[in-house]
Amino acid sequence: MEGETKQSIEQVARRIAAQYENNDLLCGREGLTLPDRSVIIEMLKDLRKIMFPGYFGNIDLKAGLTEYFVGDSLIKLGDELIRQVRRALAYCKKDVSRAEEISREFIESLPGIQEYLLKDVQAGFDGDPAAKSKEGVIFSYPGLYAIFVYRIAHELYKRDVPFIPRIMTEYAHSRTGIDINSGAQIGEYFFIDHGTGVVIGETTVIGNHVKLYQGVTLGALSTRKGQKLRNVKRHPTIEDNVTIYANSTILGGETVIGHDSVISGNAFIVESVPAGTKVSVKTPELKMSAQKD
Amino acid sequence: MEGETKQSIEQVARRIAAQYENNDLLCGREGLTLPDRSVIIEMLKDLRKIMFPGYFGNIDLKAGLTEYFVGDSLIKLGDELIRQVRRALAYCKKDVSRAEEISREFIESLPGIQEYLLKDVQAGFDGDPAAKSKEGVIFSYPGLYAIFVYRIAHELYKRDVPFIPRIMTEYAHSRTGIDINSGAQIGEYFFIDHGTGVVIGETTVIGNHVKLYQGVTLGALSTRKGQKLRNVKRHPTIEDNVTIYANSTILGGETVIGHDSVISGNAFIVESVPAGTKVSVKTPELKMSAQKD
Amino acid sequence: MEGETKQSIEQVARRIAAQYENNDLLCGREGLTLPDRSVIIEMLKDLRKIMFPGYFGNIDLKAGLTEYFVGDSLIKLGDELIRQVRRALAYCKKDVSRAEEISREFIESLPGIQEYLLKDVQAGFDGDPAAKSKEGVIFSYPGLYAIFVYRIAHELYKRDVPFIPRIMTEYAHSRTGIDINSGAQIGEYFFIDHGTGVVIGETTVIGNHVKLYQGVTLGALSTRKGQKLRNVKRHPTIEDNVTIYANSTILGGETVIGHDSVISGNAFIVESVPAGTKVSVKTPELKMSAQKD
Amino acid sequence: MEGETKQSIEQVARRIAAQYENNDLLCGREGLTLPDRSVIIEMLKDLRKIMFPGYFGNIDLKAGLTEYFVGDSLIKLGDELIRQVRRALAYCKKDVSRAEEISREFIESLPGIQEYLLKDVQAGFDGDPAAKSKEGVIFSYPGLYAIFVYRIAHELYKRDVPFIPRIMTEYAHSRTGIDINSGAQIGEYFFIDHGTGVVIGETTVIGNHVKLYQGVTLGALSTRKGQKLRNVKRHPTIEDNVTIYANSTILGGETVIGHDSVISGNAFIVESVPAGTKVSVKTPELKMSAQKD
Amino acid sequence: MEGETKQSIEQVARRIAAQYENNDLLCGREGLTLPDRSVIIEMLKDLRKIMFPGYFGNIDLKAGLTEYFVGDSLIKLGDELIRQVRRALAYCKKDVSRAEEISREFIESLPGIQEYLLKDVQAGFDGDPAAKSKEGVIFSYPGLYAIFVYRIAHELYKRDVPFIPRIMTEYAHSRTGIDINSGAQIGEYFFIDHGTGVVIGETTVIGNHVKLYQGVTLGALSTRKGQKLRNVKRHPTIEDNVTIYANSTILGGETVIGHDSVISGNAFIVESVPAGTKVSVKTPELKMSAQKD
Amino acid sequence: MEGETKQSIEQVARRIAAQYENNDLLCGREGLTLPDRSVIIEMLKDLRKIMFPGYFGNIDLKAGLTEYFVGDSLIKLGDELIRQVRRALAYCKKDVSRAEEISREFIESLPGIQEYLLKDVQAGFDGDPAAKSKEGVIFSYPGLYAIFVYRIAHELYKRDVPFIPRIMTEYAHSRTGIDINSGAQIGEYFFIDHGTGVVIGETTVIGNHVKLYQGVTLGALSTRKGQKLRNVKRHPTIEDNVTIYANSTILGGETVIGHDSVISGNAFIVESVPAGTKVSVKTPELKMSAQKD
Repeated sequence: MEGETKQSIEQVARRIAAQYENNDLLCGREGLTLPDRSVIIEMLKDLRKIMFPGYFGNIDLKAGLTEYFVGDSLIKLGDELIRQVRRALAYCKKDVSRAEEISREFIESLPGIQEYLLKDVQAGFDGDPAAKSKEGVIFSYPGLYAIFVYRIAHELYKRDVPFIPRIMTEYAHSRTGIDINSGAQIGEYFFIDHGTGVVIGETTVIGNHVKLYQGVTLGALSTRKGQKLRNVKRHPTIEDNVTIYANSTILGGETVIGHDSVISGNAFIVESVPAGTKVSVKTPELKMSAQKD
Repeated sequence: MEGETKQSIEQVARRIAAQYENNDLLCGREGLTLPDRSVIIEMLKDLRKIMFPGYFGNIDLKAGLTEYFVGDSLIKLGDELIRQVRRALAYCKKDVSRAEEISREFIESLPGIQEYLLKDVQAGFDGDPAAKSKEGVIFSYPGLYAIFVYRIAHELYKRDVPFIPRIMTEYAHSRTGIDINSGAQIGEYFFIDHGTGVVIGETTVIGNHVKLYQGVTLGALSTRKGQKLRNVKRHPTIEDNVTIYANSTILGGETVIGHDSVISGNAFIVESVPAGTKVSVKTPELKMSAQKD
Repeated sequence: MEGETKQSIEQVARRIAAQYENNDLLCGREGLTLPDRSVIIEMLKDLRKIMFPGYFGNIDLKAGLTEYFVGDSLIKLGDELIRQVRRALAYCKKDVSRAEEISREFIESLPGIQEYLLKDVQAGFDGDPAAKSKEGVIFSYPGLYAIFVYRIAHELYKRDVPFIPRIMTEYAHSRTGIDINSGAQIGEYFFIDHGTGVVIGETTVIGNHVKLYQGVTLGALSTRKGQKLRNVKRHPTIEDNVTIYANSTILGGETVIGHDSVISGNAFIVESVPAGTKVSVKTPELKMSAQKD
Repeated sequence: MEGETKQSIEQVARRIAAQYENNDLLCGREGLTLPDRSVIIEMLKDLRKIMFPGYFGNIDLKAGLTEYFVGDSLIKLGDELIRQVRRALAYCKKDVSRAEEISREFIESLPGIQEYLLKDVQAGFDGDPAAKSKEGVIFSYPGLYAIFVYRIAHELYKRDVPFIPRIMTEYAHSRTGIDINSGAQIGEYFFIDHGTGVVIGETTVIGNHVKLYQGVTLGALSTRKGQKLRNVKRHPTIEDNVTIYANSTILGGETVIGHDSVISGNAFIVESVPAGTKVSVKTPELKMSAQKD
Repeated sequence: MEGETKQSIEQVARRIAAQYENNDLLCGREGLTLPDRSVIIEMLKDLRKIMFPGYFGNIDLKAGLTEYFVGDSLIKLGDELIRQVRRALAYCKKDVSRAEEISREFIESLPGIQEYLLKDVQAGFDGDPAAKSKEGVIFSYPGLYAIFVYRIAHELYKRDVPFIPRIMTEYAHSRTGIDINSGAQIGEYFFIDHGTGVVIGETTVIGNHVKLYQGVTLGALSTRKGQKLRNVKRHPTIEDNVTIYANSTILGGETVIGHDSVISGNAFIVESVPAGTKVSVKTPELKMSAQKD
Repeated sequence: MEGETKQSIEQVARRIAAQYENNDLLCGREGLTLPDRSVIIEMLKDLRKIMFPGYFGNIDLKAGLTEYFVGDSLIKLGDELIRQVRRALAYCKKDVSRAEEISREFIESLPGIQEYLLKDVQAGFDGDPAAKSKEGVIFSYPGLYAIFVYRIAHELYKRDVPFIPRIMTEYAHSRTGIDINSGAQIGEYFFIDHGTGVVIGETTVIGNHVKLYQGVTLGALSTRKGQKLRNVKRHPTIEDNVTIYANSTILGGETVIGHDSVISGNAFIVESVPAGTKVSVKTPELKMSAQKD
């Protein structure tokens, strides 16, 4: 290595370290460790095996012995969750002693989540003519995966755990293109088909038997006010039995899509729609001409 | 661990196991093992190396000796495929003895697939001014990756292999945001640019020299009837030499986009378009006002 | 193995190898090795740790000792970069001797990139009411990840390094659904929310304090001319303080969105917009009827 | 690559393959797969965790919940064992249908093995003044490790499983330098200190409370007759409460070391020793002179 | 799975768990975690890189920048050591608060250990005609590896850290066949050639410039009294400049091999040898006859 | 972290780096990289698969298609060997341009090595009554493993490649306790049983059909002169059809064990033995007394 390169490295290392340590954006971390993103992603993998034993990881579960697998997995999961939650709370100067209780409550919530997920699987199978089997839905539907992660993350969001719910849902977002904020409230028999580009905001409320397609945004009207809007309901409410086709956008915290409605693709809706309505986009006029270039 | 936590775990393990084993959604799996998703993903990685030797996996293939690499890879691949197809057939109570034949036919189809892929690479290079080289297309274009996986999965779809084609295309979907159902029929010189959000439904038919951009949906008009629509042609036909720009939606099993047509971005089309047509969206009226908030 | 299968494998191996070696698409590679995609992805992981020490990889960095970590990482990174750049240059028959200089300049650019990224973090936090902390933005916001990778790749794009910038941005694209071409020019305090489906073309120019939402395309009007358009400015210019809401499309190399403008969701813009303009889509007429089927 | 190298590779590949396939040493393997050595080693790792839960693998086992871990591990182990035993039997043209029964019996033998091992731990702790704790014995004593593997392998040896017992004991040999043939019969409270170089032959019989040191050979007098000696008792019998110090050699199938004897280091014994005997080597005469060179 | 197998698993799991939990050998572990053996082994790997930067792990250390590598490694090592020592102390109900001080002192001892090791390398090169280079000694001599691990472990032994020193030296024992108890005291320029079967007991004292060959035991006369001998000096003292050839055995806490002595191979010594003595074994009489069988 | 610890780390890092960089033991490494030990070990794993296709790595090789596997493996192996040999030569300031030739010659030697190994397998099977099958010998006999590695390493030793032969044989030593210097010359049908503690020196010459047992040393009489003895023949010659039983020691460069001799266990031989001799140790007198303590 020439002297020049050596000097570069010394200077760059010094500048990056100084810039980072002196940055007032990032402070108060002396001696603290953030939750470990890769561990949290491992936890999601384990949770998927717990929710759907036998589907992932090449396991041939014996009828009648599933309980061993689940019990053993829960013990490890519970311990790891305590560690990660404790890090997250400590970092944010919150009460660390809650970690054990949060972990226990989380585990107690799992049978309920599983019940929901089995219904979501049913909804996925019923709603998609291309679905060959319920097993296939569990195996490979991105919509189900995103919902699974959301339901897990939501339990931690409700208990005010910092960082971890977002790490979870962003991981699902990365894998599926479906971005469900862990704060949303979503009922049973929920299904998202294809899913790429779906965005469901933090204060969205969704009823039972709702079906969404790719590119649907359930968003806020404006976020120019940034942090001032925190905790304000700024995303829509979707009542039971609503279907929203691809690439439709529904915005605003006071916008309600009434039950049993169907929203066609490419709609852009900023006001409430009464129950039982079929909303179709008036197909935008197209100019047709001979193709030449 | 306090007694409380211990009790929780015991109860939760029991409930989850019972719920899972008693669920009528999921049945008939006693002693059967599903195909292993991670093995199938490995097979895709190996297949990519077979199709484009030297591009992936840091291999410096010697001119004239490529055959060793390909031959050796095919042997391993063929064996693994037999195992996974057998699992899939057994699980669905289909004739397991077909696994060997399917694997052999699949391998025999590979040179043909490679021919198609080399043409797809050409199409990608020709069609994108940002493409610096054909190598770059092979290396990093998500469109090419999705097409590669589709062409592989389609061979298994045609042979009625359960689960595996879908696991493959959903893996590609997860990596690229491009969701091509393995049932679609797609001609040569196919190219998808950027690609995020593209959806190509199961009964779509696409000719030669077709180019799609991100966010294009080739979908069904309605799927409210769910499983009753199975096997019905419900997605459009795109003839040769058609270009469809970003975020356009084309729906319906009887909708045909005639050859040599160009569909502009953001179009929403539910009826056929004659050959040689240029379809442009009448730019929707915009309200322009001084920005204040 | 039956003789039939053996014969198949021999034939297929021969055909694939021949097809590959004789293909005029792929030539001149005798004895040359392409850059290793997986190494380049590892480099991105290391660079993220260098830019945000302590956030990734379970490291508890001691105040005052960050410099060791950064310095050590830079040495390894610099060496690896030389190796990969050299491969890329050699493959394209460019001057290999530039590799060391490129690597050194790249490393020297890192403190500047870090400065930009810390501002991007601030922009992300300020602009999103759902952001609970700046740490959360670093940890899990796909927008920040895509920008980070873009800023890294852009330094190599500027120095005419083949393959590697594209491998980098396509990796980010795969993880985030955000496709930023490494050739784009992007100012400080840049933020992309949700992000799935965003496309930013190669000749795009973006000022400071710009915010984009999911599904925004900054694209070319037409790419029918393919490689003939290379190096022509064909993507828009976005001036300072512009916000563009979800799923809007802005096309054309001469299209300029003037500073301090706001573009509403779902807009389709092919002409320039003067500074300080609020552009809203006239909500397309909706047909409302009772839902029946 | 120069033509010369290419030619070399072609010739060498052909010769090695031909030599291997035509070799009459190695035959009858068409379509058969040998047991997978690395899987068998993994099984030993799992078995160690089952025998000593909480000691290996960073697990914090909760009192009262160990059963989940053990139960879950047994299911996986039992399945894997069936697969490997089946391969071994098939390869040797033995009755494959025995695999399931062998696996079940093996699992049923585990509590008994654990009982023995806990006594071996006690013997190790009692017998070694350098042992700081029983935990330390479990953790790191090579003698205990070799005994553990022997006790496991012996169960398979007894059931005439080909290959697998030897793979197991040779793995232990490799890690500890202690070579216990899986055919030996060994009583309870067995302890080997240091252990490097210990050899215990196939037809050795060892009583309870026996202690061996490094370099002890319990071997055959001569093995010139090779395969003709198969199944003949050719290794010694060591009765209860015998201690054999370092580097002693005891040979012959009719040699019996009577109970409660002590054999000093470096002894070479080819005849029986009555019970209660202390055997010491007459220290061989040493020549002492001033050291000069 | 047949009911029989299911029942077996349930019974076995219950018995193993009960046997383990009720065993009075193993107690007091409720809620405590043992040190993680695999982490400790990783620490040895890191320490080897710190002691000999550039030799292991494919690193090309730049002259003048080694400090970054070492500094960064030390930070991680120190943290990990605190965690493992804390576990070990807690498990043994010792004062956990010492962990940080122990870790700091350990790190402070490293330059001294390195000084010793560089001298050991020199001794290895000088003493072995088959040594081609000092680099070769560092790279592959098992004697040097065992000494390295001993010197590391000895620092922890001196500070009364439970479990960890033994895990370390047994790992070296497993890899080299050389068993050096971490309690031994060993001077500078120490060299062990070949090494398999060497045993150096806990209370051994070894001077400077000592050389040992394979199979040398520096042991206790008798260990029948087991734990009662704890802390008693029961292994020999070897003074400066002594060479002990292969397979010699030297026993007893009061046995002193005086400085500048040479002990020939296969000697068995239980009494002191004055300084400057050459001890040779009177070659045992051999019976020579014509070989027939 | 307290200031104290920080200071420690800074000081220690500085001292270690300085000590290392200034050490005159280790010099001339600026910009040079040593061979990568872990790559060399991987090469041994690959070579074992090439020599015994189907035995390691869970491969089911099809009759008639082995050639693909071998050919593909050879290409990768040859390239990697060039890289590692080049590093070794460069480091020692030897002619780097020989690397390609050495690699080619090495590959050309492999069929010959395989021939030898198949004979060694036969010798192992014939010579050990505990051997159940030739497959078992290949799978798990440490003697065969050590011989395999020796035969490979010897080819590189003969071509004066630095470092690599020793790294190879020491790896085998670590796994088997058998230390064969790569310089030794060994004939065909060679077998080592059990093997722990065997040492075969650099200038040893061994004929055909020789069998050794554990603990046999074929060594030098004295190595006090260290590097001055380099290249002198200092280890014995063992002629055809000799068997040497456990723990015997044979020393000296002029010592010849004549063909068809048998050396009993525990012999210590420093002079030649005529052909056809049976050498037995006169069993050393044993003191027998009643065991009391």
